[in-house]
Amino acid sequence: MTDVLRVALAGLGTVGAGVIKLLDANRELIERRAGRPIEVVAVSARDRSRDRGVDLSRFAWEDDPADLAAREDVDCVAELIGGADGSALALARDTLAAGKSFVTANKAMIAHHGLELAEAAEKAKVALKYEAAVAGGIPVIKGLREGAAANEITSVYGILNGTCNYILTEMEAKGSDFADVLAEAQRLGYAEADPTFDIDGIDAAHKLAILASLSFGTALDFDTVATSGIRRVIAEDILEARALGFKVRLVGTAEAAGGKLFQRVHACLVPRDHPLAHVAGSLNAIVAQGNFVGRLFFEGAGAGEGPTASAVVADLIDIARGEYGPAFAMPHARLTQAEAIEAGDRRGRAYLRFTVHDRPGVLAEITAAMRDANVSIESMIQRGGAEPSEDSDDVVSLIIVTHEGPERCVIDALERLKGAQSLAGEPMLMHILDL
Amino acid sequence: MTDVLRVALAGLGTVGAGVIKLLDANRELIERRAGRPIEVVAVSARDRSRDRGVDLSRFAWEDDPADLAAREDVDCVAELIGGADGSALALARDTLAAGKSFVTANKAMIAHHGLELAEAAEKAKVALKYEAAVAGGIPVIKGLREGAAANEITSVYGILNGTCNYILTEMEAKGSDFADVLAEAQRLGYAEADPTFDIDGIDAAHKLAILASLSFGTALDFDTVATSGIRRVIAEDILEARALGFKVRLVGTAEAAGGKLFQRVHACLVPRDHPLAHVAGSLNAIVAQGNFVGRLFFEGAGAGEGPTASAVVADLIDIARGEYGPAFAMPHARLTQAEAIEAGDRRGRAYLRFTVHDRPGVLAEITAAMRDANVSIESMIQRGGAEPSEDSDDVVSLIIVTHEGPERCVIDALERLKGAQSLAGEPMLMHILDL
Repeated sequence: MTDVLRVALAGLGTVGAGVIKLLDANRELIERRAGRPIEVVAVSARDRSRDRGVDLSRFAWEDDPADLAAREDVDCVAELIGGADGSALALARDTLAAGKSFVTANKAMIAHHGLELAEAAEKAKVALKYEAAVAGGIPVIKGLREGAAANEITSVYGILNGTCNYILTEMEAKGSDFADVLAEAQRLGYAEADPTFDIDGIDAAHKLAILASLSFGTALDFDTVATSGIRRVIAEDILEARALGFKVRLVGTAEAAGGKLFQRVHACLVPRDHPLAHVAGSLNAIVAQGNFVGRLFFEGAGAGEGPTASAVVADLIDIARGEYGPAFAMPHARLTQAEAIEAGDRRGRAYLRFTVHDRPGVLAEITAAMRDANVSIESMIQRGGAEPSEDSDDVVSLIIVTHEGPERCVIDALERLKGAQSLAGEPMLMHILDL
Repeated sequence: MTDVLRVALAGLGTVGAGVIKLLDANRELIERRAGRPIEVVAVSARDRSRDRGVDLSRFAWEDDPADLAAREDVDCVAELIGGADGSALALARDTLAAGKSFVTANKAMIAHHGLELAEAAEKAKVALKYEAAVAGGIPVIKGLREGAAANEITSVYGILNGTCNYILTEMEAKGSDFADVLAEAQRLGYAEADPTFDIDGIDAAHKLAILASLSFGTALDFDTVATSGIRRVIAEDILEARALGFKVRLVGTAEAAGGKLFQRVHACLVPRDHPLAHVAGSLNAIVAQGNFVGRLFFEGAGAGEGPTASAVVADLIDIARGEYGPAFAMPHARLTQAEAIEAGDRRGRAYLRFTVHDRPGVLAEITAAMRDANVSIESMIQRGGAEPSEDSDDVVSLIIVTHEGPERCVIDALERLKGAQSLAGEPMLMHILDL
């Protein structure tokens, strides 16, 4: 290894180009902080000719990213290709097997294969770093791995997807419906052409599983993250939530209790005085609750060229400084296997929206189901339509907020109401964040 | 060095006792994360017999903290005595000279002697760590030193004193005046018997100077921090600020521009939609603005047994892991000497409260001074008393918010009004946070 940290970049999309721009712009400062220069020496991407606003002629080019790992002039590979498997994973394995440090912004790959890669990095005594994989520029991986390392973390939760948060805050600001805001976000480039990963909560679930492992010392467990998104949130939900003192946010929540683990990504109601309620637009934010430090809150840009590049280069600086250890804060063999907590076993409050026929007896049918399922109602709002009558085709919304109780009771109540004559559509359930 | 990291604790006040409690409570977890056990082996404090809620009989006792550094069974000293000089500084020097790592929660000592100590640590190739010195449990030292290391930081600012923030938010909630809330805070133990360091901004200035050095790569420069506190904030200021869309907060602000440095601690008006406006009670919060990452925001408990102990032990874990480098993010010799920016050279908006005699001509006199000093007025509020008359003894408040302009113009306007017949008291000036 020479004095220079020689980096290969795989993937030259927004983030890859951003890393090159950052290393150019802050070169002297980074060299002072890292203790030695950090230089890109080789790159690989699908299309060599595309204009990325950076001069690539200085770098060696590899058509196949897999060839970067073996280059003798490379100390360390930064992977910015994406995708849980495929060439990204192959490159990660090859790099670590070659005894070189590996940096990635790839949340899907870390969520699915992080444990295997952590083991490979330990064996090779090199770094596996992924600050950019969670919440873009916010140094939350470092904050949990190191800053809060003295604490037993009991919960970690936050706003982990900027696209969803942008859509929800736009819906809030304009009273628009989901589909309209999504279309506008796609037009502006804030949402992908295929937005599934974002709006169905999968992207947030990847990040949550990583945060949970790091926070609780449990092995990565993406498969048990109960994941839903924001497709079913309507303008009325946001309006009613506001009237009740809440904002609607897509929140990833992970909790550890008695050696067990609960992980969920869901649209939920956040009390107006909770720090997450103030997180607007495409920002991300994470809360960690530690047994000595109390509540820590981190906020910043969760995506984009500059913030993500900032996180990738922070990892490179750590590597240049030699300041790194096990990827998940402890050797992979010391991570525990945690059983998943059933949602039904949790306690909480819930927001329910029923789309009901505007007929007599509707309230009685729904409240009876609540009673039979032992759900206690904290508040109920029905905004009147016209006078109800037996043959009315009108539908109105009925909003119920429950008292705190076992989630299984709410699930049971909804089960009892399946096929009920009163209902004109699928009920909407959002949990209330009372952390 | 054995496998165990053997720690000596100097000072067994709230924080020292907290460190022992934390290491006891989270022992197994810390050992997994640190890669080896962290154990206190020796302690020193003024009074051996005081009950601190922890069993000290397990530890060697030294009457003189200075003797901890030389103990052969000690790898690392954590200093929790406090004070810029005296026994804390002597212990720091001795520990580093003995080739042992040093951890401290002592903001005054780091602000005044951090550069000397950083040099000593580099020479001895050991760690000098001080996460607990700034913002208690919030890992902001790590966040700036490492998390944001890829960025040129252009400004770092925040709420750095929990006592002041508690007082200001209580004044806001209850409409009380400063003196009443301070007395209540002292009764509750939230403010010291001698609150000078807190309420006059000195404590915040120590922390700000540390943040500035770390953020900008400039040598510590506590002496040029323009420091004022919150003694002169009255209930009316908070009320009027609210009417104008602001909260009053004691904010430490550091900015770097053109190789120069601006540092100030001052009560200021924070726009309601700025993250600092939501920081309530004794919480601390820090914002850093980086050229790639954008705005990062960190919030948490800035003081207290648990949070401060969390930061001290995070430093010990870094040391146990061997993950540390230069104290101020780069070798001390690479920190630059930055000239101070004069406040007059800054641009900004200002809030001014004049206590004026309720007589004709008062507005004319004050607005003429503003005009002559080239201060442009954005808004003005005078809440009426009775009908003004030539011989009225009534005093009323006149509130002026200026447009953005050079601060020297506001200073000039106040200069022109010195001794003005209209004024019944010293004008109150608060800057507006437009970052």
